[in-house]
Amino acid sequence: MKDRGILIVVSGFSGSGKGTLMKELLARYPDTYALSISATTRSPREGEEDGREYFFVTKEEFEKMIAKGDLIEYAKYVENYYGTPKNYVEQKLEEGKDVILEIEIQGALKVKKAFPDTLLLFVTPPSATELKSRLVGRGTETMDVIESRMNRACEEAEGMDSYDYLVVNDDLDACVEEMHSIIRSEHRKSSRNRAFMESMKEELIRLKQSEE
Amino acid sequence: MKDRGILIVVSGFSGSGKGTLMKELLARYPDTYALSISATTRSPREGEEDGREYFFVTKEEFEKMIAKGDLIEYAKYVENYYGTPKNYVEQKLEEGKDVILEIEIQGALKVKKAFPDTLLLFVTPPSATELKSRLVGRGTETMDVIESRMNRACEEAEGMDSYDYLVVNDDLDACVEEMHSIIRSEHRKSSRNRAFMESMKEELIRLKQSEE
Repeated sequence: MKDRGILIVVSGFSGSGKGTLMKELLARYPDTYALSISATTRSPREGEEDGREYFFVTKEEFEKMIAKGDLIEYAKYVENYYGTPKNYVEQKLEEGKDVILEIEIQGALKVKKAFPDTLLLFVTPPSATELKSRLVGRGTETMDVIESRMNRACEEAEGMDSYDYLVVNDDLDACVEEMHSIIRSEHRKSSRNRAFMESMKEELIRLKQSEE
Repeated sequence: MKDRGILIVVSGFSGSGKGTLMKELLARYPDTYALSISATTRSPREGEEDGREYFFVTKEEFEKMIAKGDLIEYAKYVENYYGTPKNYVEQKLEEGKDVILEIEIQGALKVKKAFPDTLLLFVTPPSATELKSRLVGRGTETMDVIESRMNRACEEAEGMDSYDYLVVNDDLDACVEEMHSIIRSEHRKSSRNRAFMESMKEELIRLKQSEE
């Protein structure tokens, strides 16, 4: 039997390239990972498909999911709900897949509280200088845009400490492998191998007794 | 400047093959790792060299090291002292090397208490059945030998839970890479990158102010 998968939350600075990173990770290891699909009440945009980008539901359906506890976490932006359906995630974890949630820090902390075994990864550019230049852009942005990006980055930075690991996105290829390696290593944590350790202990004691 | 190295304690079942594993890890990554060399009051055996297998010291010298706090941990087996000199370890950590201590569980727990950042790895065969067959041997061992190995394995198993990671030694090559990967990942832990996060935050705030 395959071990149960790990629930992984990936957040990161805007401009950290985490979207591309996730796509590449899933493309390279399709049998290892599953990307959680959010439910939302907003309308599908052109090219978006129900069950691929999002599960598109009505406001009534979404509120029913909230009431029944069917969401791992949810939030309301402007007039639309966004949330993570529990069923899909549970099913993939049972299949032994590591399930990745790409959400913001507030959602990440809610998930960690509800499921303390969740692995929190934060994607960051390699240096403040690099982040700075990505935020300021190529000199074509208005002051308003730069200011709002700056405010956002400062808020995002405040949350970094709550994450388990920092994933430095310098080179995409290296970064995908680093992330994969962090998650593989996580499977070897003692706290995730209690059953293995118990069976080892029991069998050793049984064998010792049979020798006496 | 290279980051400071990580202090790593490796323990494991007798017969887990951890000695071979360590040798191979150091041979493959000589610039990454350093093996801590213990001090001992026992006499050198044939072929052993001072400063390679052990630092061979007198009882008086050893007791002076204890008194001066020059040892990370020490223990007395039969009539001989064994201990880990702090200087050598500190020097290698400063050079940015990850320093590996191959010691028993009691020593491991003492080190973790004194240096909470220590990474504890436990090497185990892939299953209780496999461990069992390694312990019983090939049917050529006396009952006494088997019983003493069994008692020891049961004691060692009790300590597994205190370690951070389990390293499963099935295939030597894969196991060396797994151990290397766990240690590489450990360097990405948020708790080991406080300075990086602080400088990111400070620079972002500075930049935000300069825009206002």
